[in-house]
Amino acid sequence: MTAMQLGLIGLGKMGGNMRERIRRAGHTVIGYDRDPDRADVSSLAELVDKLEGPRVVWVMVPAGGPTQSVIDELAGLLAPGDTVVDGGNSRWTDDEKHAEELAAQGIGFVDAGVSGGVWGLENGYALMVGGDAEHIAKVQPIFDALKPEGDAGFVHAGKVGAGHFSKMVHNGIEYAMMQAYAEGWELLETVGSVTDVREVFRSWQAGTVIRSWLLDLAVNALDEDEHLERLRGYADDSGEGRWTVEAAIDNAVPLPAITASLFARFASRQDDSPQMKMVAALRNQFGGHAVESAE
Amino acid sequence: MTAMQLGLIGLGKMGGNMRERIRRAGHTVIGYDRDPDRADVSSLAELVDKLEGPRVVWVMVPAGGPTQSVIDELAGLLAPGDTVVDGGNSRWTDDEKHAEELAAQGIGFVDAGVSGGVWGLENGYALMVGGDAEHIAKVQPIFDALKPEGDAGFVHAGKVGAGHFSKMVHNGIEYAMMQAYAEGWELLETVGSVTDVREVFRSWQAGTVIRSWLLDLAVNALDEDEHLERLRGYADDSGEGRWTVEAAIDNAVPLPAITASLFARFASRQDDSPQMKMVAALRNQFGGHAVESAE
Amino acid sequence: MTAMQLGLIGLGKMGGNMRERIRRAGHTVIGYDRDPDRADVSSLAELVDKLEGPRVVWVMVPAGGPTQSVIDELAGLLAPGDTVVDGGNSRWTDDEKHAEELAAQGIGFVDAGVSGGVWGLENGYALMVGGDAEHIAKVQPIFDALKPEGDAGFVHAGKVGAGHFSKMVHNGIEYAMMQAYAEGWELLETVGSVTDVREVFRSWQAGTVIRSWLLDLAVNALDEDEHLERLRGYADDSGEGRWTVEAAIDNAVPLPAITASLFARFASRQDDSPQMKMVAALRNQFGGHAVESAE
Amino acid sequence: MTAMQLGLIGLGKMGGNMRERIRRAGHTVIGYDRDPDRADVSSLAELVDKLEGPRVVWVMVPAGGPTQSVIDELAGLLAPGDTVVDGGNSRWTDDEKHAEELAAQGIGFVDAGVSGGVWGLENGYALMVGGDAEHIAKVQPIFDALKPEGDAGFVHAGKVGAGHFSKMVHNGIEYAMMQAYAEGWELLETVGSVTDVREVFRSWQAGTVIRSWLLDLAVNALDEDEHLERLRGYADDSGEGRWTVEAAIDNAVPLPAITASLFARFASRQDDSPQMKMVAALRNQFGGHAVESAE
Repeated sequence: MTAMQLGLIGLGKMGGNMRERIRRAGHTVIGYDRDPDRADVSSLAELVDKLEGPRVVWVMVPAGGPTQSVIDELAGLLAPGDTVVDGGNSRWTDDEKHAEELAAQGIGFVDAGVSGGVWGLENGYALMVGGDAEHIAKVQPIFDALKPEGDAGFVHAGKVGAGHFSKMVHNGIEYAMMQAYAEGWELLETVGSVTDVREVFRSWQAGTVIRSWLLDLAVNALDEDEHLERLRGYADDSGEGRWTVEAAIDNAVPLPAITASLFARFASRQDDSPQMKMVAALRNQFGGHAVESAE
Repeated sequence: MTAMQLGLIGLGKMGGNMRERIRRAGHTVIGYDRDPDRADVSSLAELVDKLEGPRVVWVMVPAGGPTQSVIDELAGLLAPGDTVVDGGNSRWTDDEKHAEELAAQGIGFVDAGVSGGVWGLENGYALMVGGDAEHIAKVQPIFDALKPEGDAGFVHAGKVGAGHFSKMVHNGIEYAMMQAYAEGWELLETVGSVTDVREVFRSWQAGTVIRSWLLDLAVNALDEDEHLERLRGYADDSGEGRWTVEAAIDNAVPLPAITASLFARFASRQDDSPQMKMVAALRNQFGGHAVESAE
Repeated sequence: MTAMQLGLIGLGKMGGNMRERIRRAGHTVIGYDRDPDRADVSSLAELVDKLEGPRVVWVMVPAGGPTQSVIDELAGLLAPGDTVVDGGNSRWTDDEKHAEELAAQGIGFVDAGVSGGVWGLENGYALMVGGDAEHIAKVQPIFDALKPEGDAGFVHAGKVGAGHFSKMVHNGIEYAMMQAYAEGWELLETVGSVTDVREVFRSWQAGTVIRSWLLDLAVNALDEDEHLERLRGYADDSGEGRWTVEAAIDNAVPLPAITASLFARFASRQDDSPQMKMVAALRNQFGGHAVESAE
Repeated sequence: MTAMQLGLIGLGKMGGNMRERIRRAGHTVIGYDRDPDRADVSSLAELVDKLEGPRVVWVMVPAGGPTQSVIDELAGLLAPGDTVVDGGNSRWTDDEKHAEELAAQGIGFVDAGVSGGVWGLENGYALMVGGDAEHIAKVQPIFDALKPEGDAGFVHAGKVGAGHFSKMVHNGIEYAMMQAYAEGWELLETVGSVTDVREVFRSWQAGTVIRSWLLDLAVNALDEDEHLERLRGYADDSGEGRWTVEAAIDNAVPLPAITASLFARFASRQDDSPQMKMVAALRNQFGGHAVESAE
């Protein structure tokens, strides 16, 4: 392995752990964050200045506006031959635009979907990357440091955008897998024929068709709070599930299970359901069925 | 028209109105109800006794146990040549059993699905009946009195069970139609590009593809409470939606929209969603995503 | 009523019938179509030239590119004080853009969602319009000619975009209503307890909760082909169902029944289902379950 | 470990492998199958006769009629103190009935859900069992032989029925997980931004949130047939998915993702979709939209 330098922008929960894993592999990381307590430098300009060329700069900030403004600024700071990696959760349709903006300055662009969450520091991060092989080659030592041991965990998925597209689909699948376990868990908890639902989940961790890392996490969660009584049934979504469904609709691909999982999250965040008010109102109109008042 | 006698058991919201509509048509109705204030006689025995043979007795009590016990009692009271109509919301799979029990005493059986709700008294009740033509013929004057004017509103759907089966499917369709309007209404209310959602609904009552009686009722409901603020988004289900989905599953028929509508009702009745607790727990486990506490 | 002039661009199935209905109401219509056999004038320039100011021009061409190029051309031909109506199936998010482009030339813009299909000529067209009241007022005599008799069938839904948004939601509801009847019909046809499914549908046209215009059309269809044996189960979609779901996703509104209906159409157009190949492959992998070969 | 004797009825794909795994663990298995080439004895009577008491007999035949008739026969052959295990895919609601039938003869009953498929011989079988602890204790050495190494893979889930109930829910979850990967795979294959979908799947096997045994199997399947071109998109179901949904409906638990997965299988087995014929017919009725003919 050849040790190399990396500029890393965004040192939050993900970025901070990634810096640590890359450093453990022997590379030099110069990190920037708006929070000066986390940062190694005080500005993007300083970060760029401290890196030897050809530079590799990894952007790990929220998708949309924040990523766009970092890329805009880097386009003005970096030099031809440098490479930018967008490792955030950008929508894949933004990647081509970013690649063109940087290419106009002779700067390469790689989009990298990163999976692994809080476990990535120890287990490694799965990486799905898109872009030209020559640009990817410049980042490869960093990818090798981040990825898990073994053959899996890294793929050059295609041209620019293919990395984020792959990660987006990964997350869509993740939604439906989580929903699958969740539905099964609720059914077991509700029916009551099973004495100890947690032990059933635990038993599934070996030999079954449904064993998985998510199942292991479910057992962890049940060990912390057997009936999840401390939680509210409220689930956020970070955008990638939505984009997955929208990509499916654009391509006339039916995604019933993934979409059901997305909608279940939407519904979980409603204090009351407007659509079910209408259903209740209609039942009352035609059948005189009792309704519940809002108060 | 020949005026006839009918014994009517169950004088609740539906049965009471039906008695009135049948009487308006010139027939004699002897009604029994557990509530003596509604009843014309004080027992089933008295009801049977007061009817001239061959008797027609219409059962209009809740499905399951109550219907079963009335039929059991009638089997012991009625005579060969008499006819029992089950006009309640019995599961169609019960009808054959009831028919056999009564046939053993020489008593005919007709199952009748009845639609119309609180509007039936004025508009007429739609009737879907199952059974032998000879038994149905004995009840026909009553069916004619109950049904709406015009050609539609009555069908001999097939052998015993076909009436309730047709009504069950009717209700499954009803679930999905109500859900359709409800989803559209919520979307209009949420997005806010439309100034007056109620007026959009009202405008749809003529010329559109989606005009219907349920739409008229939706407009009524919005006229009473423009944003349905006085209601909670809580919708009961009376069993027929469930049976529709179960019949579909037994016959490997996919029913995605009807089933989605049924599940939306189930979810509307949960104070908190166990499955979404699990989804929240999993998101927290792998990504450190914040959760909301149950309190 | 004051007779007025209208320029009408696009004289296809919808536009042609609309011209006829407007003329029957006593207005003058100057129509343009790329097909000279249908057109009254040979170019947009000629159409504009023949109309007295202040002009009203109704665009009735396919959404997207065709509508955009007609609006571009009209922006260069019309004069301040003129008004353009987009009566096509444009995506509501295009309306603001079109309004601004025309407003820069002093030209008003109204978006009009039009429902009614091949029945509109006789029954009238339901109209949902968006835009400023002053622009709508200039078109009102035309709207009055097109709409059905009676109070319903026309609504000023809100500002620019609200007309097409309302029509889009109308179509989403339409998808789920059609799916509702279709699912019920398949279940009745499959289970076989009902002797004559068509007569059950016919009976539902009076007195039931599910009576509607779509139900009347279903009976028409069954009268033409009792078991729909002459048709393939293949259903196109025109875009508005997709946009409805996308609008819902953008606003975190769950639309399970409408989305299920959209996905059923997508699936109906697949000769073979890639996702079910994967399910079959997985079943074979873990259980040795037999698969069917592609041949 | 104490070596014990087991009577095993049903030596098909599952039963045959289980016999082999139990024997490898040092126990004696006397197997019966209707196919004499597989069987060690020629009748149930001979099997019972050859076992020393107290006997343990494991039934591994198809659910429903076949299981019922084996249990009926065993009730007449076995002696008080013997134990019957139903390791087939029986519906959990049958278990109580079987337990009572056998208890009347003093025979114990244990229901065992078994997962592991063709991989169980090498990896071990996951076991979810229901029944009284004293009956389970008698079978424990066999359970220990069958289960995978390590702590997981076995659970006493509750009283009679809890084993099959747990396995049923396991299979419901399995349906939705398979559907999740299948939907993601179809989207990747359809959109085309990803050059090599198989390599993306392979990369997901480490570090991702969605790594699982099913994912490993998906990669195996793609290695055998990269685009699954040799398969038809046709997926059977073995009953447990249906029972899962029915149990949910009985308990008012919404299961949108699992049910969507079940319905996708139903649809995959239809040559043409009746419901989509109706949708096509309705579109044609109101809009004159072209339909495709059945031929």
